[in-house]
Amino acid sequence: MAPEQATNPGYPPRDLVTLITDFGTGDPYVGVMKGVMLSVAPWLRFVDITHEVGPQNVREGAFVLATSWRYFPPGTVHLAVVDPGVGTERRPILLAGPEAFFVGPDNGLFGWVFGPPWEDHPEAGPRPLPEGWRAFVLNQPRFWRPDISRTFHGRDIFGPAAAHLAAGVRPEELGTPVGAVTALAWPRPIPAPGPALRGEVVYVDRFGNLVTNIPAKLVSPSAWVEVAGRTIRGLSRTYAEAKELATLVNSFGLLEVAVPGGNAAAALKAGPGTPVIVREGGGP
Amino acid sequence: MAPEQATNPGYPPRDLVTLITDFGTGDPYVGVMKGVMLSVAPWLRFVDITHEVGPQNVREGAFVLATSWRYFPPGTVHLAVVDPGVGTERRPILLAGPEAFFVGPDNGLFGWVFGPPWEDHPEAGPRPLPEGWRAFVLNQPRFWRPDISRTFHGRDIFGPAAAHLAAGVRPEELGTPVGAVTALAWPRPIPAPGPALRGEVVYVDRFGNLVTNIPAKLVSPSAWVEVAGRTIRGLSRTYAEAKELATLVNSFGLLEVAVPGGNAAAALKAGPGTPVIVREGGGP
Amino acid sequence: MAPEQATNPGYPPRDLVTLITDFGTGDPYVGVMKGVMLSVAPWLRFVDITHEVGPQNVREGAFVLATSWRYFPPGTVHLAVVDPGVGTERRPILLAGPEAFFVGPDNGLFGWVFGPPWEDHPEAGPRPLPEGWRAFVLNQPRFWRPDISRTFHGRDIFGPAAAHLAAGVRPEELGTPVGAVTALAWPRPIPAPGPALRGEVVYVDRFGNLVTNIPAKLVSPSAWVEVAGRTIRGLSRTYAEAKELATLVNSFGLLEVAVPGGNAAAALKAGPGTPVIVREGGGP
Repeated sequence: MAPEQATNPGYPPRDLVTLITDFGTGDPYVGVMKGVMLSVAPWLRFVDITHEVGPQNVREGAFVLATSWRYFPPGTVHLAVVDPGVGTERRPILLAGPEAFFVGPDNGLFGWVFGPPWEDHPEAGPRPLPEGWRAFVLNQPRFWRPDISRTFHGRDIFGPAAAHLAAGVRPEELGTPVGAVTALAWPRPIPAPGPALRGEVVYVDRFGNLVTNIPAKLVSPSAWVEVAGRTIRGLSRTYAEAKELATLVNSFGLLEVAVPGGNAAAALKAGPGTPVIVREGGGP
Repeated sequence: MAPEQATNPGYPPRDLVTLITDFGTGDPYVGVMKGVMLSVAPWLRFVDITHEVGPQNVREGAFVLATSWRYFPPGTVHLAVVDPGVGTERRPILLAGPEAFFVGPDNGLFGWVFGPPWEDHPEAGPRPLPEGWRAFVLNQPRFWRPDISRTFHGRDIFGPAAAHLAAGVRPEELGTPVGAVTALAWPRPIPAPGPALRGEVVYVDRFGNLVTNIPAKLVSPSAWVEVAGRTIRGLSRTYAEAKELATLVNSFGLLEVAVPGGNAAAALKAGPGTPVIVREGGGP
Repeated sequence: MAPEQATNPGYPPRDLVTLITDFGTGDPYVGVMKGVMLSVAPWLRFVDITHEVGPQNVREGAFVLATSWRYFPPGTVHLAVVDPGVGTERRPILLAGPEAFFVGPDNGLFGWVFGPPWEDHPEAGPRPLPEGWRAFVLNQPRFWRPDISRTFHGRDIFGPAAAHLAAGVRPEELGTPVGAVTALAWPRPIPAPGPALRGEVVYVDRFGNLVTNIPAKLVSPSAWVEVAGRTIRGLSRTYAEAKELATLVNSFGLLEVAVPGGNAAAALKAGPGTPVIVREGGGP
C-alpha cells in the first residue's frame, strides 16, 4: 500500500522529519502517515512538534511552524498538514529554503516561515519568495501513494513526498517551480493615541500564558499594559518574580501576559484576538 | 530490572515497533514499556499509533489496529495492549503474518487484522488462522522480565517479547503454536425495508467525524443517509465542497458523516452505536 | 540558533534521552527542545516519558521520574523540566549515577531517584549524595545556547547540556561538583491507633487508579482499607477478579485503590492527599 521504497543516501542521512498537524493523537492518522513515510525510507526519524493544532486552524499551525522550525538542524524536512481544503484545488507544495524544507498544503501554513512574522509583517495573499528560497507544486504522482483519497492527503501525497525528499530526492524532481507561496495576514500592532501600541493575543499555551503580537523590545520596562480590563505595570524578569498578573518577555521575544503558578487565559477570560494595549509612561 | 539484552541483527535491523494502548500519555506507563524494550534491544525505534484508546475498550483498539497496520513496512512489530483481563487466564499471544507481527493479549484485539473487518465480517469467538499466518501463546518466561506483576503485562511480558521478536528471535522460540485467535463480532450492516442498509457509527475521530461500518462503495451518489434524525442527500467529494452536514468516503473507504469545519458528533449527539440508514433512491 | 555541534562518539553511541516535563504536547516547546538537542547531536533518540505533569507540579514530576528511570538502559540521560523557578537562582543541575544521568532544575525533581521514595523516605532539603553518585551545577555556558532567555531554560540550558552529555561530554566538563541535591519530603505513612497505618493517595493515573504511599508488602491479604468513607476488605490479585471497588498491588509495588472497568478517583472523589488507612484484622 506504499509507494516505491527509496535508497538510503548514506551517513549522515538527511533523515529528520518534523510533524505539525491538527490530527490529534487519539486517532491512527499520525501513525499511518509515519508508517507510509517509513515504507518509503525506513531510516527516517520523526519529531512531533504538535498534532494538537485546533481543527482546521491554519493560522495556529502557521504560528507554531514559524516559531519552531529554526531550532532544528539544517536539512530538516518540516511536514505541516492543517488542511481544511483537502481534495480541492489548493496546491500541494514543497518549499525549499537555505536551511530547511517544508511540505504541505499551500493555504497559508508556510507564509510565515521566511522571518519571524512579527518582524516580517506578512500580508494576506501570494508571498514572493525571498532570495535563496524555491517552491514547487507537488505534481509528480510517482512519488505518491497509488490511490489518492479526497480526505487524507497527509497520508497519500504530503507524507510520501516528504519521505522521498528526506531520502534524498531533489526538490525539482517532486514538482514544478512556482514563484510564490500563500500567506495569511499577520496582525501587525498599530499605533494608538496616548501614545500607545494596540496589539492582540495571538496564541495561548498550556500554562494559559497569553502570547501577544507585540515584540517585547518595543515595550519599555516602565510601560503600562492593558488587557481584558486589567492594567499591569512594567515587565517582570521571571515567572517567579512576578505577582498575581504579570507581563514578561516570552521565549520567542514577544510580550506575554502570565499568571505565575496560575492561568492567565482562564483568569482573564482572554484568548486569541483579545486586544492588548501598551502605553509608554504617564500611568494608566 | 530488564531481561537479557539481545544482539543487533545487523542492517537493516528488524527494528520497528508500533504501539497501541489505552495507557494515555500522562502517566509513565508507555515510557516504562519503551525503556524495557530498549533494555532488550537498544536500537529499536517506536511509532506511537495511539495511547488514547478508551480505557479497557478492546473494540476500539481492534479498530485502530485493523485500520493502521497495513501502512507500515514489512516486518513491523505491532504491540497492542488494551488489557482489562491482565493477570487472568486470557492468553498472551504473538501473531505472525506474511507482512507483520502482532503482540498482546488475545482478547479480540487481533481478530480484525486479517482483512478489513468491513470486508471480512468477523464473528465473535475463536478465529482460525488464514493461510500464511501463525499464532503462538507466549509462554517462555526467559524472554520476560524476571518479576511478573499482575497488573502491567505490557511492561513485564508483551514489551519484552515484542523487543526480542523485533531483535530477531524467531516466533516459535517465544511460545507454543495455536490455531486460532480471539475475534470480536464486527457489526455487519443489515438489509432493511426500503430497500435500505442499516449500519451504525463505529468510530468518532478528533474532528467529530462519524465513521460508519458501511463500505462507501455500497452507497450510490444519489443515496439518502439518515442519522440521528437528520437526512443527507448524496456523497460529497471533499470536506470543503460539503455544506453544513455531509456524507463522504473516508480515508479507509467507509461511509463517514461530517460537519466540515465543525463537529458532527457534537452537532448530532452521535457516537459509536448510533444507527445509520442508507436508502437508495426514492427520497427520504 | 544552536550551540556547537558535537561529534558522534561511535557505536553504541550514548544516544538515548528521556523527557519529563509539564510543557504539554499542544505547544511547540517540546519539539523546540528536541530540535536544539538534535542540533547538538543529530543521532540522539528520544523517549517521551510524559509532558503532562501538572503545570509547575514538581512533586508529580519527581514521582514520575522516580518510578520510571530504572526501566531504561544504562547510560540513559533523563531530562526533567518542571521549572516554576526558571530564571531565578535555583540551580541548573546534572546528576550522574552509576546507571543513569539526570539533567534539570535542582528544585526537588531529582531528590527521589536514589531509591524508591517509599523505601528511602526522603526528607525536605539538601540530600547528600549516596556513594557512586556525583552532582554538578551546570555553569559552563559554552555548552548552552548563545542567548539565554529567562523563561525557557529547557531550550537554552538543560536541553543543550543533556545533548552534550549524551554525545559523550564528561559530566565534570559541564559544571562544578556539589555534594547534595534538593529533595522534597516523601509523605511517609505513619502508625495510627488500631493498630493501623495512615497513608495517602500520592498519584492518580489515567484509569483513575489511586496510587498510595503505602508499600503493598506492608498490607496483609486480610487487611481492611479505608478511603473516602469506604472500606475495602483484602487485596485483589487482578483488576478482573476485583469487584466494584478494590485494593491491589500496583505495578510499582504500592497499594492501589481501583474500580475495575471504572474510575476510582471519580467514584470516590479522591486524589493526591486523600487519606488512606490500613487496619490489620479485627474488622472495620
